[in-house]
Amino acid sequence: MSALECVLTELAEIFGDRISCSEAVRDHHSHGEGWQEGRLPAAVVFVENTQEVSTVLKACNQHGVPIVAFGGGTSLEGHVTPPENGISLDLSRMTQILEVNGDDLDCRVEAGVTRHALNAYLRDSGLFFPVDPGGESTLGGMCATRASGTAAVRYGTMRENTLGLTVVLADGRIVRTGGRVRKSATGYDLTRLFVGSEGTLGIITEIQLRLHGLPEAIATAVCQFEKLEDAVNTAVTTMQIGLPIGRMELMDEVQMDACIKYSKMAGYDVLPTMFFEFHGAPAAVKEQVETMEAVVADHNGKGFLWSNNPEDRNELWKARHSAFWACLAYRPNHRGIATDAVVPVSALTELITGSKKDIEESGLLAPIVGHVGDGNFHTVILVPPEPDGLARALELDRKIVNRALSLGGACSGEHGIGLGKKEFMEREHGRDALDIMRMLKISFDPNNILNPGKMLPDNVM
Amino acid sequence: MSALECVLTELAEIFGDRISCSEAVRDHHSHGEGWQEGRLPAAVVFVENTQEVSTVLKACNQHGVPIVAFGGGTSLEGHVTPPENGISLDLSRMTQILEVNGDDLDCRVEAGVTRHALNAYLRDSGLFFPVDPGGESTLGGMCATRASGTAAVRYGTMRENTLGLTVVLADGRIVRTGGRVRKSATGYDLTRLFVGSEGTLGIITEIQLRLHGLPEAIATAVCQFEKLEDAVNTAVTTMQIGLPIGRMELMDEVQMDACIKYSKMAGYDVLPTMFFEFHGAPAAVKEQVETMEAVVADHNGKGFLWSNNPEDRNELWKARHSAFWACLAYRPNHRGIATDAVVPVSALTELITGSKKDIEESGLLAPIVGHVGDGNFHTVILVPPEPDGLARALELDRKIVNRALSLGGACSGEHGIGLGKKEFMEREHGRDALDIMRMLKISFDPNNILNPGKMLPDNVM
Repeated sequence: MSALECVLTELAEIFGDRISCSEAVRDHHSHGEGWQEGRLPAAVVFVENTQEVSTVLKACNQHGVPIVAFGGGTSLEGHVTPPENGISLDLSRMTQILEVNGDDLDCRVEAGVTRHALNAYLRDSGLFFPVDPGGESTLGGMCATRASGTAAVRYGTMRENTLGLTVVLADGRIVRTGGRVRKSATGYDLTRLFVGSEGTLGIITEIQLRLHGLPEAIATAVCQFEKLEDAVNTAVTTMQIGLPIGRMELMDEVQMDACIKYSKMAGYDVLPTMFFEFHGAPAAVKEQVETMEAVVADHNGKGFLWSNNPEDRNELWKARHSAFWACLAYRPNHRGIATDAVVPVSALTELITGSKKDIEESGLLAPIVGHVGDGNFHTVILVPPEPDGLARALELDRKIVNRALSLGGACSGEHGIGLGKKEFMEREHGRDALDIMRMLKISFDPNNILNPGKMLPDNVM
Repeated sequence: MSALECVLTELAEIFGDRISCSEAVRDHHSHGEGWQEGRLPAAVVFVENTQEVSTVLKACNQHGVPIVAFGGGTSLEGHVTPPENGISLDLSRMTQILEVNGDDLDCRVEAGVTRHALNAYLRDSGLFFPVDPGGESTLGGMCATRASGTAAVRYGTMRENTLGLTVVLADGRIVRTGGRVRKSATGYDLTRLFVGSEGTLGIITEIQLRLHGLPEAIATAVCQFEKLEDAVNTAVTTMQIGLPIGRMELMDEVQMDACIKYSKMAGYDVLPTMFFEFHGAPAAVKEQVETMEAVVADHNGKGFLWSNNPEDRNELWKARHSAFWACLAYRPNHRGIATDAVVPVSALTELITGSKKDIEESGLLAPIVGHVGDGNFHTVILVPPEPDGLARALELDRKIVNRALSLGGACSGEHGIGLGKKEFMEREHGRDALDIMRMLKISFDPNNILNPGKMLPDNVM
């Protein structure tokens, strides 16, 4: 029997029909939502609790069978692509919300809970969880990729919002890290070592999360600009003056065109546009709106429409969150490649205007959206259905990332490395920092069974 | 020649009179400010840049000579106590502020820069660095111990305010971690692995820090309470309603008595007292003050005196920052042991009222101060000059820490582990998490030369 057969035989006794080798199930687990080529797992194991994850990992480690965790399958950089002759470990049935401590603004959830499910659960509690990447991502996956989203500018990313973890190590040991305190100074920060480790050091099964009180008042505003630079500079100024903005999102004129058509947004021009959200107590929100109105006026903003009507707000953010789908609808038969780059905020204008030139020169269509308060922006490169379409799109993607790195940035603000960004790791971190990362990988996973081939450039799959 | 002699001979050629074996210098480097017994280092090496740190570590690593970094010498848990036959590496001459990026609210400093020096340098820039532990601590030491202080409730600790590091590894390799971006998702979070590692994984030589804009408006307020519970509950409620408080500090009636006498504070009663600070735009600050006034009224606060006069503010925080010295002056000939414990905010009232009982039962005098918004509080146990004084004080200290752990807390909010808290590590983290920490220690420092004996319970000195 091969190592894989040994493991599957061993697990079959325990998991029964929760091990699947069906074509449909394997296909669903063969890829995320990125452009990277998928691969069928040998089998998919559906786990229901931490102990089961431990059982599976013990078996895999003993026999040297590689394994990758799978949650919502929304990864954009190939994180969930199974290794060769490997197992996909599906945690999407681990959907229990284990505790909500309203008084301390924290909760503990299983890794398969989605951010939507958590916020639906919290609906009447006056609390919410602010990290909002696109898609039906699970909190386990968001933790593993250090996800963020539109509200990170105010509330931070998964790094800041994860208090503690339950992690299963390669050899099946179950470890609790961190805890429920807001701060501590008691040993190595294991929690943050696992956050963003992309399933290569251990598999996250439970997460203690920070929650936030729903703001007493929320207002939104929209402002359009003739020039993209003016829109970006508005964001840069906002950060520099320290306005505690709740959300601040950029769409260029191409993205606006797509969104106007897709989301039937009335009353907007096809121009670079900023969406703002203000959170706080009523007088504070009013004051923020006034300050922002002055900032956009300084940057040649065309009108400044603000509202504290929840319906206007929902419409606005629904349109923003539909941006990716709006792009796909904008050019039927095109695939979309979501790029991701981040720079210090002062370099953002140069990054975005330079990238805009790169896009023009490429002859491709690539609408821009950006979490501009964080110095983070995306384009959705629309890949024409032509033989060299993907190659041209990837060339453009690489150009934008290299531009960000030249400006002192990082190759990913929130999508992670996976398979798609490995080539940039050495340029960004340098050889010695990469060597430490490799040392960590080997220490935690000496048999290289945990998501092999991801993140580290010479981590073979 | 012994290993130590080999190293000192090798280094003497390079460092000349910057290696000192004088009694006075060695004595200064033999201890921090904690109660733990000191030990003379074999020699002290004064380094002036990262490359020199690398040279020293290479030599130490090659010959197996243990070494500990020394900055301001303000550690409270014995972190800087030299290992036997070891070297104390003094970084206090590394005082360059290497860059300030006002537009991005960040800066890069050498490890020997103190927080006071950085803020003095920033004085006219409209920026400040908010992490403010007591004493003349260096930013390198603050990073290594994951320090915080009175403003952490609003601005976070060294964990949140460190963007990147230059670290020298045991074998002399120089590594840059992190960078200048506000967020990224590109590999293991090495920065946060070194923050709080207490010099046991590498020696931090440069730090990229987040800065913050000085708030447009600042107000302070003071409120006194008949009952300690009411004061603590005020803090708990403030956090639960999400008021973005700038600082929120508790002093019990004993601490107030000491401060009134030491800092000649007029107009206050000897009662439990809360100090507040509000940061923001003018209307927001006004609104926060009004909300807080309502909260203290709900908790039987006696009067609520607020001010936006900078002189009142300086007087208030000067008194707060002198609390430790006020305690020592309160009982001449007594030493002071600063305890440190942290719990989820909802457990704070139980922790503090319980600890107050522990203090009473001990028969010792121990004024209470607390960063209560973080669930963190300290007592300064005044050690009577009697043969069993220290033992009684330590017994009380242990009781308070164990009480915090029983309430789901951590054994240190900000002072760290060093020698003083090693015994609590297993109870707090569990055996498996500790095993991972040990594995990390061995991976980074196979010859155990970096601050041996600290943090991990069986890390021998």
